[in-house]
Amino acid sequence: MPSPVDAAPSYVWAAAIPVAGSRIALDEQESHYLTKVCRARAGEGVTLTDGRGALARAIVIETGEPVTLEMEDVQQLARERTATWLVGAPERGRADWMVEKLAELGVDVFQPIDTERSRWAPSEVRLERWARLARAALRQSRRCYELSVCPPRDLAEGVADAAKAAKRYVADLAGTPSGRLISHAAGRTVGLVGPAEGFSTGERHRLTSAGFVAISLADGRLRTETAAIGLAAWWSGGA
Amino acid sequence: MPSPVDAAPSYVWAAAIPVAGSRIALDEQESHYLTKVCRARAGEGVTLTDGRGALARAIVIETGEPVTLEMEDVQQLARERTATWLVGAPERGRADWMVEKLAELGVDVFQPIDTERSRWAPSEVRLERWARLARAALRQSRRCYELSVCPPRDLAEGVADAAKAAKRYVADLAGTPSGRLISHAAGRTVGLVGPAEGFSTGERHRLTSAGFVAISLADGRLRTETAAIGLAAWWSGGA
Repeated sequence: MPSPVDAAPSYVWAAAIPVAGSRIALDEQESHYLTKVCRARAGEGVTLTDGRGALARAIVIETGEPVTLEMEDVQQLARERTATWLVGAPERGRADWMVEKLAELGVDVFQPIDTERSRWAPSEVRLERWARLARAALRQSRRCYELSVCPPRDLAEGVADAAKAAKRYVADLAGTPSGRLISHAAGRTVGLVGPAEGFSTGERHRLTSAGFVAISLADGRLRTETAAIGLAAWWSGGA
Repeated sequence: MPSPVDAAPSYVWAAAIPVAGSRIALDEQESHYLTKVCRARAGEGVTLTDGRGALARAIVIETGEPVTLEMEDVQQLARERTATWLVGAPERGRADWMVEKLAELGVDVFQPIDTERSRWAPSEVRLERWARLARAALRQSRRCYELSVCPPRDLAEGVADAAKAAKRYVADLAGTPSGRLISHAAGRTVGLVGPAEGFSTGERHRLTSAGFVAISLADGRLRTETAAIGLAAWWSGGA
């Protein structure tokens, strides 16, 4: 039974969503979530996404592990605006919740970047952890596009990739206040935030040459993760 | 010696800032910060604030505990825009970094609010911890106005107090996208974010009657702390 506080149906993920009328079994994690956290029962409605724009209404056929669902109707939602965030390493321990918040705010790609002054510490388990946080945020925010998390790459590669984007911004205390810039442009926006140690002068010059617009998110210095989230909130407010 | 990465002088706090030419001793925490973290030495320049708009350039006269500073010049900066944030209880463990981020973004008052569906858990140490986080964020962001943290009060009282504000906003997925609202109004802005369980229907009606404008910060559901920070980033971008 839906709680009186949140009458919206449970929201779950599946790798692929079949056509209306057909059935699927949820994976272990989603089955657990639906059975143990949402306490869903046979006959109840559920919303399902593949994190790539497909959105379905479905009915719980069988609970347990796995949960079986039958599709009622399936639609594919278009994405007119996307966001790729290139972010230097924040201070230790601050990346996880940044990833969670970027996912909640609807950023599409999180690309850690290594710069002259700072490189992301090597980690094999971090990408898996971030992917789990992104999945949880997908359900939490009831989105149908999931944040992709990438292994670190060099700033120069990220900047080269950004050349094809519709808009390019770099967080900078000395830039134009975000409240005076248009946030609802269509197409792909690339947001760039330097590491805790900042960009070098040479990097700043190359960013200007590459067409990155300096955007100021507050009238005080922001930590890397705060600037990344503030920039995402600004972009997200243009939805 | 300032590092090549950050040539700005160390930034510290004092309860009161005397006139130019006079000397003060920093308190234990700020003395420790300046000596051990910034590794300041006699003769170096320091920036000093009282967190209430006073900003001074000073010179380190003596290191150790306490550190003695001599004021070089002192100014009082006016504050044309202020922000009071009324926030319901987020899920457990998410309030501390919300306070840190609101302080970084320049919010003036953080007022926890109790609502029909959710009350803040009682805590004596929490306010002290929040005050420490606000102090650290003041230094980090090099601001001269400090975030004030308040004990919880009821929504009705917070709403009554907001009647005198220039602008009133409530975070709401169904509201006007923030990118289409003017963020750079002068005066006092009150931002309101419901608890994890949301507002009741009755509370929503009362907020509308009280002139709160519904503002949407993203096209997905946001957690309480994410909405509070997103709303602060929107306001802060109007600086």
